[in-house]
Amino acid sequence: MLNKKIILLTLIILTLFSISVVSADNVMVMKDDSIHQVSIMQAFMHGEYEGVISVGDLKLNGDTGLGTFEGVDGEMIVLDGVVYKAKADGSIQVMPNNERVPFAVVTNFDEDASIPKISANNFSDLTSQLDKELDKLGKNNMYVVKIKGDFSNITVRSIEKQDKPYKEFNEVAKTDQKVFNYTNQSGTIVAVHFPNYMGDVNMAGWHMHFLSDDKTKGGHVLEFNKTNASVGIDIISEFNMLLSSSESFTKMDLSEDMTNKISQVE
Amino acid sequence: MLNKKIILLTLIILTLFSISVVSADNVMVMKDDSIHQVSIMQAFMHGEYEGVISVGDLKLNGDTGLGTFEGVDGEMIVLDGVVYKAKADGSIQVMPNNERVPFAVVTNFDEDASIPKISANNFSDLTSQLDKELDKLGKNNMYVVKIKGDFSNITVRSIEKQDKPYKEFNEVAKTDQKVFNYTNQSGTIVAVHFPNYMGDVNMAGWHMHFLSDDKTKGGHVLEFNKTNASVGIDIISEFNMLLSSSESFTKMDLSEDMTNKISQVE
Repeated sequence: MLNKKIILLTLIILTLFSISVVSADNVMVMKDDSIHQVSIMQAFMHGEYEGVISVGDLKLNGDTGLGTFEGVDGEMIVLDGVVYKAKADGSIQVMPNNERVPFAVVTNFDEDASIPKISANNFSDLTSQLDKELDKLGKNNMYVVKIKGDFSNITVRSIEKQDKPYKEFNEVAKTDQKVFNYTNQSGTIVAVHFPNYMGDVNMAGWHMHFLSDDKTKGGHVLEFNKTNASVGIDIISEFNMLLSSSESFTKMDLSEDMTNKISQVE
Repeated sequence: MLNKKIILLTLIILTLFSISVVSADNVMVMKDDSIHQVSIMQAFMHGEYEGVISVGDLKLNGDTGLGTFEGVDGEMIVLDGVVYKAKADGSIQVMPNNERVPFAVVTNFDEDASIPKISANNFSDLTSQLDKELDKLGKNNMYVVKIKGDFSNITVRSIEKQDKPYKEFNEVAKTDQKVFNYTNQSGTIVAVHFPNYMGDVNMAGWHMHFLSDDKTKGGHVLEFNKTNASVGIDIISEFNMLLSSSESFTKMDLSEDMTNKISQVE
């Protein structure tokens, strides 16, 4: 009986302690409004393609987002808690938890605003319509946006896996980028939007990855024609970033302004 | 007996669940290596002085750091879990939990490296010595540094509380900055160092606030002469930032590059 009481007491204490730890750590972690970033875009542009965390750990930080895999091995789309790879051969693969991630952004998607019906003629037409909406919602926040619709024509790219020593991403994009053009696709674009002040950490403006509804086609969105879509918008007010602890990152020369190079390939 | 078993089982489940929640949320929150930032420096420079979180909540995110209070009412020094205000009248006050914070950075200080003895002739002599150390530890990380020593002469400033409508910080610094010069002070400088890629979110380079050992003098460090000190260094690999949800922030025009204005006053 005494043993049971001690076990009970221990469990009560453990439970209370665990709960208090959660709330303390969560003061600035409002799960639904925070975005989690692995590494920085600038390091990636300089050829930092080594994994920082696993797919399994990434999924614990969010169910929706985009990124890439170790060695720039394809384009990552995270949708409804599943991590997909759009490979350079044009196929789609659901990724196991042990795959490594050198760069990604994910959030637990929480729809704060929506546009039930939107029609756009191309990428820039859509983003200019979305920009007006974000201006109303607060132009200095970050955003994760899901665009679900029909695309009469969509052009995506993926990258062939790189071997060490890694080249800068602009060089890789010139030689190992595979471009795919698909007609009449239904699917979802997972998009992120960062304000200008985040341009040295991620990339200012829009970044979009596509996955078809039948999960057979996808990649980094380069362009599309004519879409009718519905848009879900998650307003992000908290940013969390984990830097790489690799020797190559900590010694990397990041003094070069990569803004122009990023705009060339993204 | 059955009730007891049910309670026991419930507590076991609750405990396991709580522990799993902690580890899930902590995947990218390595408490000792993360820095928590309230708002962004660029918004502050533009006159965003409204509180975002309370002193009580700030303390849950770290025991060491610096910042300011609502209305730029003095300079904040966070040391050993206590939040101090160096006021514009030259006095020091321990701040209550309900005071509001418009901008701050804090960490749970964890000494990853140290310099037991360092001598420097002034601010730039010290920072150039520290820069060499940070280059060795990894120049692309963030750092929180405690410099504990004797200062033969130290010049600090604090700011008079501002009323709405708030002016840009460069205007405020011209008219409402109070400068104090102290001789033979023993105390601690809490310093933060951000790499260049964080220059649009915080401020690239060194930012230092001082508090005397007797807790009677302190402020934002402008200059000092001759110091013998010991230095504790916390290597930061995770950055967490909470944006303001105020209407003034979400509508603020942040397109102006504030880098030059920041370097004038910080």
